Amino acid sequence: MSTLSDLQTRLDEASADYEEFASRGLKLDITRGKPSPEQLDLAADLLTTVTGDDAFTPSGVDTRNYGGLEGISELREIFAPLLRVPSDQLLAGGNASLTFMAQALTFALIHGSAVDDRPWGHGPHKLLCPVPGYDRHFTLAESLGFELLSIPMDDQGPVIAEAQRLADDPAVKGMWLVPMYSNPTGITITEQRARELAAMPTAAVDFTLLWDNAYGMHHLREEHPDNLDILSLCAEAGNPERAWIFASTSKITHAGAGVSFFGGGPATVDWMVSNLGKVAIGPDKINQLRHLRFFSDSAGVEAHMRKHAEIIAPKFDAVLSALEKGLGPDSLARWTRPDGGYFITLTTMEGIADRVVKLAAEAGVKLTPAGATHPYGLDPSNSIIRIAPTMPSLEEVELAAQGLVACVRLASYEKLVAG
Amino acid sequence: MSTLSDLQTRLDEASADYEEFASRGLKLDITRGKPSPEQLDLAADLLTTVTGDDAFTPSGVDTRNYGGLEGISELREIFAPLLRVPSDQLLAGGNASLTFMAQALTFALIHGSAVDDRPWGHGPHKLLCPVPGYDRHFTLAESLGFELLSIPMDDQGPVIAEAQRLADDPAVKGMWLVPMYSNPTGITITEQRARELAAMPTAAVDFTLLWDNAYGMHHLREEHPDNLDILSLCAEAGNPERAWIFASTSKITHAGAGVSFFGGGPATVDWMVSNLGKVAIGPDKINQLRHLRFFSDSAGVEAHMRKHAEIIAPKFDAVLSALEKGLGPDSLARWTRPDGGYFITLTTMEGIADRVVKLAAEAGVKLTPAGATHPYGLDPSNSIIRIAPTMPSLEEVELAAQGLVACVRLASYEKLVAG
Repeated sequence: MSTLSDLQTRLDEASADYEEFASRGLKLDITRGKPSPEQLDLAADLLTTVTGDDAFTPSGVDTRNYGGLEGISELREIFAPLLRVPSDQLLAGGNASLTFMAQALTFALIHGSAVDDRPWGHGPHKLLCPVPGYDRHFTLAESLGFELLSIPMDDQGPVIAEAQRLADDPAVKGMWLVPMYSNPTGITITEQRARELAAMPTAAVDFTLLWDNAYGMHHLREEHPDNLDILSLCAEAGNPERAWIFASTSKITHAGAGVSFFGGGPATVDWMVSNLGKVAIGPDKINQLRHLRFFSDSAGVEAHMRKHAEIIAPKFDAVLSALEKGLGPDSLARWTRPDGGYFITLTTMEGIADRVVKLAAEAGVKLTPAGATHPYGLDPSNSIIRIAPTMPSLEEVELAAQGLVACVRLASYEKLVAG
Repeated sequence: MSTLSDLQTRLDEASADYEEFASRGLKLDITRGKPSPEQLDLAADLLTTVTGDDAFTPSGVDTRNYGGLEGISELREIFAPLLRVPSDQLLAGGNASLTFMAQALTFALIHGSAVDDRPWGHGPHKLLCPVPGYDRHFTLAESLGFELLSIPMDDQGPVIAEAQRLADDPAVKGMWLVPMYSNPTGITITEQRARELAAMPTAAVDFTLLWDNAYGMHHLREEHPDNLDILSLCAEAGNPERAWIFASTSKITHAGAGVSFFGGGPATVDWMVSNLGKVAIGPDKINQLRHLRFFSDSAGVEAHMRKHAEIIAPKFDAVLSALEKGLGPDSLARWTRPDGGYFITLTTMEGIADRVVKLAAEAGVKLTPAGATHPYGLDPSNSIIRIAPTMPSLEEVELAAQGLVACVRLASYEKLVAG
């Protein structure tokens, strides 16, 4: 056990290290899960795969004109096995899966779901939010009037007993979930946990798993888990319409100009198409054709993702190595070691995450605001920090991780000395 | 005045003409306002203006990555003078203005407008629908729970006395309007009528003009009206946030892969961006950059539109000529003679539009269903038929118009003989 004078010595050292780092006047940003320019370059050839001479799909659709709410069939066929959704239950959409999420939730609020036509918006409506989770999920749902209920995650997924307890309220209409390489922990839900969620008794007959498979193909290592066939798990449990599946190529091709996907049970997809037909003209089919020609087939997508891994795995490793070296020996924090996705979650001592973020900002390292990983931006433990290492260069990531370590060390010893 | 035997003779002739036409076994479609392949070819070079080597805007934005909810500034600057909206009050969006319409109306239902934060959805909510009008406007609003109230159009725009009478109800939140070359009549609202709408007393403080300027650049003739500066007219009347302006390049570049626009008063644009930030990631900026490079400037857009006119004006003329020749001498119907846009409206004798559409279908000419131009698909006069001559070839348009004339003649004489 450290004596107070030991701790004061370490605080002084941490303070000196921090000042030294801050004095370099760096400007680094590890806030958002954006691909780096080098990753975007991987899809450079996609941009010219469709020309004015040949904008027709293999089945003869002129992608330049109106029509085709479901997206072009050949692209749906490529992504169907990757996402484990039958191609006729998979829609290809515009440039952002968030749009599909907003549309599907809005339809349910106004018209009810495919299972129950009572509009969610006609009474109290709540969503379960595994924490730490994705801030945009929470902001979207809050803006649509949902009350957000936090539930804890363990290393296998959302804690099922807590989910079930909360789902006993008929106002609880569903649960957000990033099943693979979760934002921000990197955790992948186990098949057993997914099976339990598929079968879980719920008061709402149309309780829905908002299955945002944003990182389902985003492996960092050769060995990796497979995507779960959540639709079959739900069907086997007698809840064939329980899962709404979202995905996109935003972090596969171009972040602002990819293709989004929506999948679900047969009735859910009919419901989605029917509702979309009233509020949308149809997706940009030219861009879908670009993607089709760029990838050719499912294996083309997988090969492309290995190129991403080659670029970003070293960045993850740089962060993990810096954390291990700087925080491991004194056990000042713990962190996740993801095998894919875009984020590492750092858990500091309780009560200092906001201090770390502030120190980092003052030293030139921009971090996601403390609390952003929780509903309403409130992390009760004030200990969760999301690290997004993909966008900066490897050298910048190494520097940012070094700076982050200095901040955590300083804030930790400040707290320990203060007692 | 015709005797009954005269009429019977004409009916027999009309019937023979119709049978002759039907016997040709043609398959023609003049239902939807789609550009023809030849029109889509005009923007062929757009598709390759952005390559992987150079996907940056003039101001240095990497269009491939996330960010930029407002759309790229340089494209907004090109379209701002064309649409008569200050560029900082004009957003550039995704591939369909209908999406902007659905989003703006949904935000107002949930959050209230920029003028009044009482959500429209918390009470009865109604929209005025000038008829004949655009079926997708009506379907969208109905799907969002609005009650649709028809108001008549004259040759200067919506009849103001009727609009004002209905707007005395606080549940009436706004009015649809296609100000230039209206779908389907082709009428352009006069500045005087627009001024009256801008100043009209309304019970709802946030009564909104849903100003869908879908055809604002789609002139058929060299001489043409200018777009109205509706934002200034509203501001001068003390209602600076009254107009929401929608537009797109769907019928300028590629119908499924254009760029949409949203404009409004300063507070409305702030409100839109703030709400969009919660439900959307941002538009496809690469496609916006393609448009910027293809057009270069506002004059580039206008020059491009003249090429469209060269293709479609002859199709309009073919229809008008067939109507004049086949229906004019007996005064069996009347029709609009638009100077732009995508449609001609044919008004038959009362009670026979559905019969004409049915006869046409049986003779191989597909027409928009009778009633589609009215809320809930119900045209009380059963006399309005929308003609969309752009998509088929000129030869097909000529044939379809000839078939349509035969159907109107037959249905008219059937009615006259039946008395």
